[in-house]
Amino acid sequence: MFSPLIKELIESLRCLPGVGPKSAQKMALYLLEREHKGADRLAGALREALDKVGRCSGCRTLTEETECSICADPERDATRLCIVETPADVLAIESAGTFDGRYFVLLGHLSPIDGIGPEELGLDHLDNVVLHNQVEEAIIATNSTVEGEATCHYIAEQLKSKNINVSRIAHGVPMGGELEYVDGNTLALALEGRKTL
Amino acid sequence: MFSPLIKELIESLRCLPGVGPKSAQKMALYLLEREHKGADRLAGALREALDKVGRCSGCRTLTEETECSICADPERDATRLCIVETPADVLAIESAGTFDGRYFVLLGHLSPIDGIGPEELGLDHLDNVVLHNQVEEAIIATNSTVEGEATCHYIAEQLKSKNINVSRIAHGVPMGGELEYVDGNTLALALEGRKTL
Repeated sequence: MFSPLIKELIESLRCLPGVGPKSAQKMALYLLEREHKGADRLAGALREALDKVGRCSGCRTLTEETECSICADPERDATRLCIVETPADVLAIESAGTFDGRYFVLLGHLSPIDGIGPEELGLDHLDNVVLHNQVEEAIIATNSTVEGEATCHYIAEQLKSKNINVSRIAHGVPMGGELEYVDGNTLALALEGRKTL
Repeated sequence: MFSPLIKELIESLRCLPGVGPKSAQKMALYLLEREHKGADRLAGALREALDKVGRCSGCRTLTEETECSICADPERDATRLCIVETPADVLAIESAGTFDGRYFVLLGHLSPIDGIGPEELGLDHLDNVVLHNQVEEAIIATNSTVEGEATCHYIAEQLKSKNINVSRIAHGVPMGGELEYVDGNTLALALEGRKTL
């Protein structure tokens, strides 16, 4: 039905997360019918980001600069390091506004099936960072999934052997969460992690 | 938080329909973290479609060829013309599989507020098509919205003055629709358009 170039555009829009064939078709037609300017900007931004965005030399987050804004900030406490999976996790923790240390972004988690081992996560670079910044405390904030836990365990072992204080962020009932609606696994974690009052 | 190029990518992804700030951020990070190949393909497809896709010389639908596949098909009955708003509408009617005429795609509807008048919808070109193909019947299948109805009315007047059989697709209760769940406006249309048995 559609001409080859339009079909190719629809197909290639499907690489976006959460975009199925119907949405991709809608997006492609919308861009071509009514949003030439936005589409042009998108094509340019995509090309430029692909060409220039690399890793921060400090925390390995995505940035086109040598150092990201957090690593470049002399006010941040370099001896405290929070280890997260993605740049979005950095944003989430920053929004809490209580952590003044630096980050280390794995950009993924250990997943042997996908060929992601310690090297892909830059764990050798983590060793350098720890040594160079004389890190005293490492807080591991990988996701609470099977892979995230495995990654946490691996990194904890690696860092503990260097005499660093390693901790894991707490898991339990979220603020404002009603016990009735919290799932069993979370409750099990909440019970296990109980604190003496 | 994010570097300028990443911010720009997030911003420009927001031109996609249905994509808010959160999804745009998710998409941008996903592309940069894990989908370089897909992003590269998307940037290329977007650029090429923007550069080459234009209008079909017959029905004005989006295509990079001079004539779209339907207009180029000698089997289709050129004397019957179905007038729709968008290329997606052509696809929808084609999927019904019962119409063997040609289409005319307005790519929009009359909307003086947005500066869309008869000229922008190519209604002068419609006159040429009607004359050139000796169209005998025109079926107007614009959307059943205020603007769609206004557009239908305008086109109907224009075509009727040329002694063409002009009709509007039927509106009523959809197949399998339970009366209980059909909205009042649709039921009013269904009653108004009742057929003698």
